This record gives sequence, C-alpha cells and structure tokens, in this order.
Amino acid sequence: MSSQSLPSDDLPLEDVRDHVRLACVPGIGSRLRRLLLERFGTPQRVFAATPAEIASVGRIGPKLAAAIPALANSAIADDVISLCRKRSIDILLEGRAGYPPLLSRIDDPPGLLFVRGAILPQDSLSVAIVGARHATAYGLKVAEQLGASLARAGYTVVSGLARGIDAAAHRGAMQAGGRTIAVLGSGVLNVYPPEHAELACEVIDSGALISELPPLTEPNVGTFPQRNRIVSGLSLGVVVVQAADRSGALITARLATEQGREVFAVPGPIDCRMSRGSHQLIRDGAKLVESVDDILEEFGPLFDTATTADGREVTSAAELQLGDIERQVLAACDGLAGGAAKPVSIDDVVDASGLAASQVLATIGVLEMRRLIRRLPGSQIVRH
Amino acid sequence: MSSQSLPSDDLPLEDVRDHVRLACVPGIGSRLRRLLLERFGTPQRVFAATPAEIASVGRIGPKLAAAIPALANSAIADDVISLCRKRSIDILLEGRAGYPPLLSRIDDPPGLLFVRGAILPQDSLSVAIVGARHATAYGLKVAEQLGASLARAGYTVVSGLARGIDAAAHRGAMQAGGRTIAVLGSGVLNVYPPEHAELACEVIDSGALISELPPLTEPNVGTFPQRNRIVSGLSLGVVVVQAADRSGALITARLATEQGREVFAVPGPIDCRMSRGSHQLIRDGAKLVESVDDILEEFGPLFDTATTADGREVTSAAELQLGDIERQVLAACDGLAGGAAKPVSIDDVVDASGLAASQVLATIGVLEMRRLIRRLPGSQIVRH
Repeated sequence: MSSQSLPSDDLPLEDVRDHVRLACVPGIGSRLRRLLLERFGTPQRVFAATPAEIASVGRIGPKLAAAIPALANSAIADDVISLCRKRSIDILLEGRAGYPPLLSRIDDPPGLLFVRGAILPQDSLSVAIVGARHATAYGLKVAEQLGASLARAGYTVVSGLARGIDAAAHRGAMQAGGRTIAVLGSGVLNVYPPEHAELACEVIDSGALISELPPLTEPNVGTFPQRNRIVSGLSLGVVVVQAADRSGALITARLATEQGREVFAVPGPIDCRMSRGSHQLIRDGAKLVESVDDILEEFGPLFDTATTADGREVTSAAELQLGDIERQVLAACDGLAGGAAKPVSIDDVVDASGLAASQVLATIGVLEMRRLIRRLPGSQIVRH
Repeated sequence: MSSQSLPSDDLPLEDVRDHVRLACVPGIGSRLRRLLLERFGTPQRVFAATPAEIASVGRIGPKLAAAIPALANSAIADDVISLCRKRSIDILLEGRAGYPPLLSRIDDPPGLLFVRGAILPQDSLSVAIVGARHATAYGLKVAEQLGASLARAGYTVVSGLARGIDAAAHRGAMQAGGRTIAVLGSGVLNVYPPEHAELACEVIDSGALISELPPLTEPNVGTFPQRNRIVSGLSLGVVVVQAADRSGALITARLATEQGREVFAVPGPIDCRMSRGSHQLIRDGAKLVESVDDILEEFGPLFDTATTADGREVTSAAELQLGDIERQVLAACDGLAGGAAKPVSIDDVVDASGLAASQVLATIGVLEMRRLIRRLPGSQIVRH
C-alpha cells in the first residue's frame, strides 16, 4: 500500500482494513456503522462479536447480524485496499487526520471516504452548486459563471458530477483556475454518467473525486440521496441553480438546512419548469441569488479556522474577500488581541498597523460592515 | 352638463364646480386639499376665505394663499365641466357615491377623479400589474398572461397605460374579455404615450381611463409617482412583473405596502437587468409569483363586501374562485347565520343546502382550505 492511500496519520493497516471491511458489509450505512462502533468500540471488535451481541444493537435484524461475523475473515477488505493502492485512491477515516472537518460535523458522516485526487485544508471553504440534469442553456450558463466566481473568490466548488448543472459548476470552477470536488453516488472507479469520464479526470487534477462507497460500486438509485448529504456536508452552503419539483437538488437543499448550512437559490423565468424548485426554495426562505456577492455576504464566522490557498488562517469566510489594507488592519487587531476575541483600542491598531489613522478608521468601517469586527464603547474594537 | 358627467348622487352643480375649481388650483394636491377642507368645510368656503385665513393652514405659503381667493370667480371650473360634458367624462368626488371604495381608504385619496368609461362596483375586486417600460419579450408575455388569468378569475386589471408591462397587462385582460382600468399621470384627454391612443379607446370600452388631473393636463415627470398611489390604491394587490433598479414600479410597490395592500413580484432570469427590481422585492418580502394562483391564494377577507360581475355579493376574494357546489354550501351557511359570523351546525347546513351530507362535508374541507370558513367544536362551522 503506497503512503498515498494510507490515512494520513499512522493508524495500523490492520485497523484500516477492518474499517474498510465494515464499509463493505452490504446493509451497513453510516448510521448503523456509528451505532456499532458506539457499542463495540472498534471495527475489529464488531467483527469479533457474536450475531446475538450484534443483534442487540438497535435496528439490526438477524440476517445482517449473522452476515457481519461471517465477513470477519473475508478477503474483501484486502482486495479493496490493494485496488486503492494500485489506482492511487486515498482512504480517509472519519475522526482521523485528513478527513474534511465540515463533513465530520454532520449527524451521519461517512465512516470512510475514498478519494481520487486530494482534499486540501483550503477545501474547508467550499460551496456546493447543484441542480437539474435537464438544465436549460440559461441554467448551465449561470452554474458555470457562479462556479467560476466562487473559485475566483477562493472557494472550492462541490457538486455531484451529474449531467447539467453539476458538470457546468465543476467546469466553471476549473476554468477559473480554482478547485472543485465531485461527490459520486457510485464508487470512484465507476464514474457515472459514463460520458463524464474525462470531466472526472480533470476534477481529479483540480481537486478530488470522492465517494463513501467502495471504488467499484455501481451507481444505484438509492445511493444518490445518501450522496447528497456529503455534497452539502462538505460545504458552507448549497446553491440550487435550476431544479424541477421533487428533484435531487431539493433533497440536497433540505439536507443542507438540517445540517445548519446556508441554502441559496437562483430564480429564473416562470415559464420554465426548471425554475419551480428554485422558486419554492426562495418561498421557503432560501436566499435569492443574483450574483456571487449574494452568496459571499451570507457567510459569517466559520466553524473552525480555515487555511486559504495562499496559506492565510481565516476565521470568517468574509476574510477571503478582503483587500490588502483590510487584511493589514485585521492582522494588527488580531496581533494585539493575541488571536482571541479580546477588545483592543483603535489607537493601538493604528500604531500596530503603521497606517494613517484616517485609513484605519475607514477600513474599520468596512470590516464592521463585513461583520468581521464590532465597535465597542471607548474607541475599542473586537473580533466578531 | 349631461347626467353622465355629474357625480352619481345629486350634489348641486355649484358644489361640483367648486370642487373642480379647487382641483384646478396649481399647487393644490390631495393633501393640501384635505387640509383646506378640514379647516373650512367646503370648497365654497375655501374660496370665500381671506389669504390670511388660508395661510393659517399648515404648509400653505403666502403665494398660494393669495392665488386661491383670486380663482374664486374664474371660469376655469366651468370650462372643465363643460369639456367633461362634451367629451363624456364623469367626475367622481371623494366621499360621494361612485368613488372607488378601496381608493378612499388610502391616506391621500384624490379629491376627484376624471373618468372616461365607467368604474363599476365589481372593480372593487382589482389587481394592479405594473412594470418596466423597457420590458423584454419574457416580461411582456408574462404580463399579458397574468392580465388574462386575473380577468378570467373575475378581477379587474389596473395599470398605468405605459409602454411595456402596463400595456401588455391591459391587453391581456381585454383579450380575456375582462375589465381593465388605466390610471394616467396626465389628463384623460391627453393620453400619454401618444402611440397608446388606440389602446386608451379600447380600455374605455372595457373599463375606464382615469386621472385626478383636469382632462387636458400635460404629462409631467412629477405627476407619475402621484399617479402610482392611485394604481395601488384602487387594487387589492400590486404585481410587479419586471422592474429595473429604482423604477416607478418599485415606487408603486412601496406605496402598496404603505396602503396595506399585497405586493407580488415575478422573478426572471438573473442575467437580465429587468429582473433586479422584482428580485429585490422578493428579498424584501413580496410574494413570489409563478402563476395566477400564487396571487389569488393571498387574498383573504375584503375590506368591504364587493359585488361580482354576475351580481353576487362576496366578502372574500376567495369566493370568486368557487364552483357551484361550493357557493351553494357557503350560501346555506350564510343564510343560516343571517349573513353574520355566527356559528352554524353542519347538520343544518346539510338540510339547508339540499345536498348529500358527504358532499357538504367534502365541500366544507375545500372552503376551510380557502380560509372562507373555520370548523368549531361540536360539528359547527363559522365564517372566517
């Protein structure tokens, strides 16, 4: 196994194998996996348990309870790991280094992710763009433009590699020289739809192709809604560009809401069926998007500190949109506060920044508007 | 003066003349008129007052105070009345019969309205459609379709006879055989824009062309925002179809909100400048409209009982969309309650309607959904 396909911290191969084996048990999704690990501690102990012990875990029927110990000595995990090694597929384990932090915050994060390409720290600043497969020329143009604009603003664009909006969003991000992640409802070696094989290769070079399913898993209608929770789970927000009634994009939007992520929708002509889903979302409270600014201005403080492509540490998505002077003032403020949310005096910020007082004051106005700092009484400011 | 051009109750001609004369004083808008009438009681007494007495009314400067008594004996009002008689223009006075009841509910109703055509009782069920002069083909198509659909649903379509959306809305209503009212920012004998002279004639035959300004008044940029308050004031709600930033349609929407009327907006493609205003309205809480149903379902109980084109008395706009059986059940309910909001027993409604109990029960469900009645404990229902 190449170092590339090992989880990035040094979990013994034995343990990785058991995690993969657990993922390969048909019928064990992320929720049952979590229940089993809560009950038994490690995958190894799950496989060592008796069917009766396994059946004592909520919602596991006798058939599945019997199937798990039967797989304890199967070669299936070795086969998968060897395939991953051969085809340069990384395996990321939930709770271990390298796993996307935003995704681990959802209720049912995938136990493992198979990754072609690479997920980088800056991918914590991701926005999903999803929508109809049968998109119109208008929808495709908007998806491509938003993908490009988000990429230029420093965001990674997440989508599902589907026909229509998904593909346009990936392409837009890449054309702008940005990063993009495609989450599959099949295995990462079984790209669906087949005509997107070439697009998948480009995505691998500009980001990652990922799936929670073993690499050769066939696409299956049941796996796509599951996939959608990963699309939204990886992202600060989900933008729906075009969606018919009852479409997958609406499922992704609902999941995003449940996961506490922002939901955005692009309106369109009312005489087009593909506008219905977006308009319903707007009625239900999704933010109406006319331009990338409508998306960017919604993002406030991040769950965790994130690292941008140029290596800056940011605590709010709004920091991505700052000019040089604004960054300088914010850095002076952070330096004085020791990186904490401690009030600092504006006079000290002026001294520390080396800028003119008038310029610092004007910049503080901008930073306030972007909700990065707050003014306090007594000429003080504090990080939001 | 023909009976047609007299207000429909028997106000002496002398008084009409003084009302018209007051309307002809340059600088007296609806607000000053109201202040003067509050102070002096009748237009006659306004003209009999001294400049000093007039100047004691708030916000009236010395120049205007001197101009009013100077007009006391001018022939201007006789000229206007004689012109109205000759050209079949009705004069409606605020507070007198024939004046649109919804319009008299706004803060600053016009003191008089010059009307070519006729305003009928059923015009209390009006919806305004407004929007951009430089509308796109999409906007024009939507305005025409909504105009037609509202007309078919029994609503009068109000607009401003402007190029673009306004004209399309009037045309849609008339093509569907419905009624339409055009409110002008010029006098009703000075149709603007000139190329809508023919359209104005059609509107007169299918409803009314109205203005608060004397018939020959030239269009003037200042009169259009004033005109917009009449467009919204005549209507239960205002639908904005396409509007650029800072357009007149947005003024009408704001006035509608201030007047307590519903505001609706039709979304459109985000790459079209003409969608901006509509999208801003939606962000600000206007109802997003995809079809006429989105408009109709918003209208609840009416301010006053209205009479439909087929002579029915309705207390809620939702009653316009009822089928025969639904009307029959509602009529039985109203009959038992003596037209009041008094609870009646469902069994009595079954008996009174002469319909099968199962049919009455199903119909009650529909009427409940349309918010026309509410169920009460003990198998009773009551009007909303």
